[in-house]
Amino acid sequence: MVTVQELEKLYDQSHCIKDLESFLRFESISTDPAYEKQCVECANWLREHLKTIGLQAEVLATDAKPVVFAEYSSPKADAPRILFYGHYDVQPPDPLEEWTSAPFSPEVRDGRVFARGAQDNKGQVMFFVKALEALLKRGDLPVSVALVIEGEEECGSGGIARTMGKWKEKLKSDVLMVCDTGSRAEDVCAITMGLRGIAGLTVRLSGPRTDLHSGVHGGVCPNPATELARIIASLHGPNGEIAVEGYYDDVPSPLADDLLVANGVVVPDEYYESMSGVKPFGGEKGKSFAERRGFRPTIEINGIHSGYGGAGMKTIIPRDAIAKITTRTVAGQDTAGALKKIEKHLLDRTPPGLTLTIEDTEHGGSGLSVSTKSPVIQKAREVLSTLPVGQVELMWEGASIPIVASLAEVAGAEPLLIGFGLEEDNIHAPNESFSLSQFKKGFLYVAGFLSSYGAE
Amino acid sequence: MVTVQELEKLYDQSHCIKDLESFLRFESISTDPAYEKQCVECANWLREHLKTIGLQAEVLATDAKPVVFAEYSSPKADAPRILFYGHYDVQPPDPLEEWTSAPFSPEVRDGRVFARGAQDNKGQVMFFVKALEALLKRGDLPVSVALVIEGEEECGSGGIARTMGKWKEKLKSDVLMVCDTGSRAEDVCAITMGLRGIAGLTVRLSGPRTDLHSGVHGGVCPNPATELARIIASLHGPNGEIAVEGYYDDVPSPLADDLLVANGVVVPDEYYESMSGVKPFGGEKGKSFAERRGFRPTIEINGIHSGYGGAGMKTIIPRDAIAKITTRTVAGQDTAGALKKIEKHLLDRTPPGLTLTIEDTEHGGSGLSVSTKSPVIQKAREVLSTLPVGQVELMWEGASIPIVASLAEVAGAEPLLIGFGLEEDNIHAPNESFSLSQFKKGFLYVAGFLSSYGAE
Repeated sequence: MVTVQELEKLYDQSHCIKDLESFLRFESISTDPAYEKQCVECANWLREHLKTIGLQAEVLATDAKPVVFAEYSSPKADAPRILFYGHYDVQPPDPLEEWTSAPFSPEVRDGRVFARGAQDNKGQVMFFVKALEALLKRGDLPVSVALVIEGEEECGSGGIARTMGKWKEKLKSDVLMVCDTGSRAEDVCAITMGLRGIAGLTVRLSGPRTDLHSGVHGGVCPNPATELARIIASLHGPNGEIAVEGYYDDVPSPLADDLLVANGVVVPDEYYESMSGVKPFGGEKGKSFAERRGFRPTIEINGIHSGYGGAGMKTIIPRDAIAKITTRTVAGQDTAGALKKIEKHLLDRTPPGLTLTIEDTEHGGSGLSVSTKSPVIQKAREVLSTLPVGQVELMWEGASIPIVASLAEVAGAEPLLIGFGLEEDNIHAPNESFSLSQFKKGFLYVAGFLSSYGAE
Repeated sequence: MVTVQELEKLYDQSHCIKDLESFLRFESISTDPAYEKQCVECANWLREHLKTIGLQAEVLATDAKPVVFAEYSSPKADAPRILFYGHYDVQPPDPLEEWTSAPFSPEVRDGRVFARGAQDNKGQVMFFVKALEALLKRGDLPVSVALVIEGEEECGSGGIARTMGKWKEKLKSDVLMVCDTGSRAEDVCAITMGLRGIAGLTVRLSGPRTDLHSGVHGGVCPNPATELARIIASLHGPNGEIAVEGYYDDVPSPLADDLLVANGVVVPDEYYESMSGVKPFGGEKGKSFAERRGFRPTIEINGIHSGYGGAGMKTIIPRDAIAKITTRTVAGQDTAGALKKIEKHLLDRTPPGLTLTIEDTEHGGSGLSVSTKSPVIQKAREVLSTLPVGQVELMWEGASIPIVASLAEVAGAEPLLIGFGLEEDNIHAPNESFSLSQFKKGFLYVAGFLSSYGAE
């Protein structure tokens, strides 16, 4: 294994950040069809960039956004193969007025790169690429490496999910490395042992042909805003539990050992509040923070809109109301089935006179659970323990990387999820950023793991 | 009394509509502070217009929007005095993209004038003004007349309400005529016997400092959109009744005679649906259409907004959620007290961790109830029965004209509410319009009543 001192010497910050900034300038917003062209341009740029560091690279078509694929084949025929998964797409940047600098004009301030995607996931993709580049330059990379960087992680990974079956040979690997997670604090380095699945829909409740006068019609016309609120309210019970019939039928209980480890990391309410501005009082009553976030499913309202929202009174009964809803599922749960149950719940509660329609159904992907006994996990713990990355910790994550579970299956690879994000990075929110010091830790980890894993 | 034939001769449609169009061009949106200047310009234009027809006219300042006051004093010292109340302000025109012609560029199509305010209330103010002008020209108006046209009816009538005590002498009258109502069908002419009161507020439920990732935080962070929906859902019980504690304590039961008359006018579900696009299944179960609309209070959600509303998924927990809420009260009910009860209900239900704030509280005005035995009502029925305006009908209206009850009290006048609006006019909605034939009926009624009332 390469020593820490040697790894440190491989790191060239200004070179790394220059290339990251080029990557961040693309408005590769996948959820909004208006940004189609920018997504394609971003994929093409990444392919060219990967060629410049010595990889064979191509853009693979799907029925949706293209996927960037690149590889380095070791001259040693029996070298293990590491598959790296990441995504070049980003979340929409709105509300725009809250950004200090423009979301697609990256800016370094106070040791952080600010831009949409700075951390999630362009920043973490870039430290992998730069570490790989450095090892290739050094000339003794002992493993084969492949990269698969998709463009729809933020909206369900549909394109890659429907197409990757055809790429089975290309993808076949020993380890699936993913750097799209984070840690709870700067002095901690988390290995993610679980991810939740995700699926979503938009529900529209329609009433009168047009907005109606709330005096003339109040008490007579059913109000879509009021009624959608009542329908949404019915999704949860009084103790924060999901109240959709049969929802919990296939939700497995967490392994006692896993829960014990997860509960060992205590997040004080005050700490959570200082980071987020709110006390962590959401979710199911009587369950721990770690269990609610890492081992239990949720239904979240991501948006609700109806009628007037401006200054003063506008006395209308709105003609319709929409809500955007996602559910996070856990490993072992049928995610598509969970969405079906929610749809049925919503439709069953449509009040007389109004019309409920389900729009934009999206099946993201299933939850993932990694065994604490996996040899890849053991190896990663060893490598990390030699590096200045903080104390190693196992974490069961609440977020989703929709494709990971099925990609690991197709590739026949053991998943290894280690990322360097922090809460303060504001991913999915205004002023997303990534600190240069966390970027460097990511670089050291990737360089350390690739050089060490192959050396055995 | 002037004969119908003579009244018909007084009507000059192109003259009337030309002046109405000038009135309609002002963007006198009172609820939005951005239109302050346009409201003042509209008031000034109206003052000048009333001077041209021979009235003494002035603009009276309030602590908010100005009020236009004008009068004609009969040479006969004992002539009765008719006070006309109307408003020059209008509702916001959004959603703009649904208008066929621009809301402030009046256009006559298919016998209707299309513009914001075409009916509510500029159209109905204008037929009063034009009928008064015609009688003045004819030279034998037997009554004194005063007009008070305010600029905040659509947002609570605050300015006039707080100031009119000072104008007691100016306002003192025998009859308070209001043309800001309508009928259920073209062949009917309704006398409005009741109006509801109105008050409103905006409620904001705030959570995290910024939108949060719904995976990382889902199950831990309380969701303002979900929780506001639950709070709103608690405002009504399972049978559509208001579930705010003590809300019904001061709500009087309707007079049996009034309810009998009101129930005599049956609105078939199919008819209501053909007009509005929705079946009239809203409000309290087990009560008639007429009772729910005319004799019972409501709480309506006029708008609710939180988080993402665009295409695709955006997986956030929104940082806050707002709802715009109004309550319609009935005569005898304490409107300000009703709003206080709603505020308390909302605050009492704030979930742990989130912050609820009440913003933009507006106390519109009280409900009104006119006795069927009023001599002014008897007189109006007589006059209408001689005119081609349709069958006369008594109606208990669901809408509000916030200031009418208190204005009648200050002026010491008997209220008389007859208007010529129809459901198809789309007031408060896109493509508001007023038919020329209904405008003419209004003209005939005003001319007939003013010439007849004074002649006794």
